[in-house]
Amino acid sequence: MKKNILLTIEYDGTGFKGWQRQPEVRTVQGELERVLSFACKEEITINGTSRTDAGVHALGQRATFTMTSGLPVEKLPRVVNNLLCGGMHSLHPVGDIRIVAAEEVSEDFHARFDSKGKKYRYIIRNTPEADIFRRNYCYQVAEKLDVEAMKDAAEYIVGTHDFKCFQAAGGEEKETTVRTIHSLTVQRDGENVIIEVAGDGFLYNMVRIITGTLVEAGLGKKQPAELKTIIESKDRRNAGHTAPAEGLYLVEVYY
Amino acid sequence: MKKNILLTIEYDGTGFKGWQRQPEVRTVQGELERVLSFACKEEITINGTSRTDAGVHALGQRATFTMTSGLPVEKLPRVVNNLLCGGMHSLHPVGDIRIVAAEEVSEDFHARFDSKGKKYRYIIRNTPEADIFRRNYCYQVAEKLDVEAMKDAAEYIVGTHDFKCFQAAGGEEKETTVRTIHSLTVQRDGENVIIEVAGDGFLYNMVRIITGTLVEAGLGKKQPAELKTIIESKDRRNAGHTAPAEGLYLVEVYY
Repeated sequence: MKKNILLTIEYDGTGFKGWQRQPEVRTVQGELERVLSFACKEEITINGTSRTDAGVHALGQRATFTMTSGLPVEKLPRVVNNLLCGGMHSLHPVGDIRIVAAEEVSEDFHARFDSKGKKYRYIIRNTPEADIFRRNYCYQVAEKLDVEAMKDAAEYIVGTHDFKCFQAAGGEEKETTVRTIHSLTVQRDGENVIIEVAGDGFLYNMVRIITGTLVEAGLGKKQPAELKTIIESKDRRNAGHTAPAEGLYLVEVYY
Repeated sequence: MKKNILLTIEYDGTGFKGWQRQPEVRTVQGELERVLSFACKEEITINGTSRTDAGVHALGQRATFTMTSGLPVEKLPRVVNNLLCGGMHSLHPVGDIRIVAAEEVSEDFHARFDSKGKKYRYIIRNTPEADIFRRNYCYQVAEKLDVEAMKDAAEYIVGTHDFKCFQAAGGEEKETTVRTIHSLTVQRDGENVIIEVAGDGFLYNMVRIITGTLVEAGLGKKQPAELKTIIESKDRRNAGHTAPAEGLYLVEVYY
């Protein structure tokens, strides 16, 4: 009996060359397929919702795969997580990938094509000195950010627009660059400035370019009202820099 | 003109096979000597205060070295830090080692032999679920720790004792296993339990074995009053387990 399984996955992207399987390098998909194939005693191929780049983290990545294995779905997280952290040795209970949940879904359900949208978080550490223990988990910005200016700029991005200006070269060809951003919030939380963005879909590097643009608004290098003309220009060169991968977290996938 | 330089160094121990230089593997000493030699245009050998193990972190490691280079001491941190993080690219301002300070000291000053003592911190994360983003920076203990019991146990350790029971095999031969612990505190700080210990010197793995023993007291596996007989026994087998390297930080060296 074939079963179609939907996984919820978190990972620390530091040790991976991104999500997508590639020969000779360590990727999240490659690592999961290796371990799932071992656990299920059959060759497993998974379809992830988001092909995150090298260094990008996930709290709620999703992926589907089919298995014929008799391994009960409810046992799958524990079995796979033990393999992922190198055994049940209690002193090291977690590896850099963890299966948060596994559930059986209808056979035609697909983690990516059935997704209605996603939510990302971007963590900026806004202090004069970098923290070496957080260097892989945030974007260090030394100069004080004007969060109110960032919020004003963010308002121009919410809604349905052609976001070509926020698309990096090198991604897969998309039919349209029109997307809907449902919400985009900016808030200071202690030493961090947290950006959260939810939308029906994202272009290649879109969240990182939005972040870079908002950072430039927060530094006074761009006026919030300029966002309107930046978006209308559909020209990547008018938007801000691409913020580094380390600050980005895929938080949730909507179905 | 030879100058003797004292460095204050912080590092994330995750990517290193410990402090001490070894062929073919990445170590903190090896990495620093490589970069300092490049910056000073002469072969530099450094003497660190503490030869931390693989995975152990430092906020205030110290090391001395002599240089004939004309590089001004006050410029040394910036020059070396830029080399350590791969250049001045503003998006990645810090690598996994950072020179916090550099000062010229008298020519006979030695970072290790002149040290009067050290302070270590050990971070336990005491929550049911591990956090994958903190797995290299703390010791995950799922079961709730009784911090009062840990404090009671800690009291038996403070003072001058023969601490042979807290010495792991494999370290360098020491003349005596008598050491003085000046202070040993345990406190809950949100989801963490923080142990801080200061003393005139530490045996091999001593802080990690003290931590493992205190954790066992916090779990009710050892009674606090047992610490007295454990210490008097001078037998490693009577003490607790060795807590993992990831939770340990060298905080300060006293001169």
